[in-house]
Amino acid sequence: MPNPTAAMLTIGDEILSGRTLDTNTNHLARTLAAIGIDLREARAVPDVTEEIVAAVNALRSRYDHVFTSGGIGPTHDDITADAIAAAFGVGIGVRADARAILATNYADPERELNPARLRMARIPDGATLIENAVSKAPGFTIGNVHVMAGVPQVFVAMVGWLAPRLAAGAPVGSVSRIIRRPEGIIAGPLAELAAAHPAVAIGCYPFQDEQGFGASVVLRSADADALAAAKAGLAALVAGLGAPA
Amino acid sequence: MPNPTAAMLTIGDEILSGRTLDTNTNHLARTLAAIGIDLREARAVPDVTEEIVAAVNALRSRYDHVFTSGGIGPTHDDITADAIAAAFGVGIGVRADARAILATNYADPERELNPARLRMARIPDGATLIENAVSKAPGFTIGNVHVMAGVPQVFVAMVGWLAPRLAAGAPVGSVSRIIRRPEGIIAGPLAELAAAHPAVAIGCYPFQDEQGFGASVVLRSADADALAAAKAGLAALVAGLGAPA
Repeated sequence: MPNPTAAMLTIGDEILSGRTLDTNTNHLARTLAAIGIDLREARAVPDVTEEIVAAVNALRSRYDHVFTSGGIGPTHDDITADAIAAAFGVGIGVRADARAILATNYADPERELNPARLRMARIPDGATLIENAVSKAPGFTIGNVHVMAGVPQVFVAMVGWLAPRLAAGAPVGSVSRIIRRPEGIIAGPLAELAAAHPAVAIGCYPFQDEQGFGASVVLRSADADALAAAKAGLAALVAGLGAPA
Repeated sequence: MPNPTAAMLTIGDEILSGRTLDTNTNHLARTLAAIGIDLREARAVPDVTEEIVAAVNALRSRYDHVFTSGGIGPTHDDITADAIAAAFGVGIGVRADARAILATNYADPERELNPARLRMARIPDGATLIENAVSKAPGFTIGNVHVMAGVPQVFVAMVGWLAPRLAAGAPVGSVSRIIRRPEGIIAGPLAELAAAHPAVAIGCYPFQDEQGFGASVVLRSADADALAAAKAGLAALVAGLGAPA
């Protein structure tokens, strides 16, 4: 049975303006690889309702899971929860359980849970909450869409809570090997290796350092036997090139 | 006249597997902001022809410019040039000018320009070349699509060559200010500020450090007068909150 598939949607002007380097996609990618969910696509869109709605609907119809990052805070530009509700065509409002969680942040919730903060308790109808161990304000899952915060520490905490609760596939194993030959020399034999091992994804990432040209070859597969066979093939390839072992 | 618009398309399994943190999108975003081209969307897709073709065609019909990163090297998984040709419905082959540029890398091009390396001289019909000051193998522009390397040093060099050759818009100016109050306190007045300055995009990015809670408020606009007015409004907002100046 093939692994479940997934897409990441990063929401926020700060990513597209270059103010913020997105590290959440990379964190999610590594987490999903470890539990056998294949991340197939990533997108970033601005804080614009129609853009969020269109991207969520395109991605949720195509992949088993969609993970979003950003736009669930208390400010005017935090429009993700409302956009998700619009994408699913459901209502949204302050929910008692989410409000109760937020209230634990404050000595005097009646006074301190102002309208801006209460925005963080707005949850689309039918969603379940995602725990936020860092700053309480929850994320949520609706259908196959998991809505999480953009602040990296909070995103990481939410993914950490969510990941063990997802149906896992076969973890993707990987083997990587540095070959100290120019990529243009490695490429021909590597294409033959790739053709001989169709169940293994083979990538080649060139670099140059003080020792000269080299490349990192990465083998990836959810099939452990296929990966082992390709690894043996790679060892033979390296020996054939006369490269240092 | 509104600024030109753009999308970024990152191509490569290594991004979606989490092996590689994408920094090219951030570099492009900052470069485009400085020359007044609005980056509106970013996507990452795997090394799969149909995925690349579909993304390129979706993005090039919607934005003034599309910038791609990755998949133009010598190995079997470098399929971007062929995919771009397929997206445009044009032919592709080794081109003499690209071959001549590659040849300058080698003492004995007839021997060293092997079939793998010659893949890097495959250019879709009708494209113009993008200079690569780092490692010679060129990128190319076809229609409104600019195809560049994934290796960050090469991507940066190609963007540096390309950017001054693009029709620029009004640079987006920005002002940012740290406010040492919790985001939930800033949010209400900030929403009023945003409503009063519709030509200015206002973002609020919370943080917590040893001094407590705070947020970085960022004002962005291509309209310098509107930006100055919003900046004055922000100063008044900070004073109203009693936050340290």
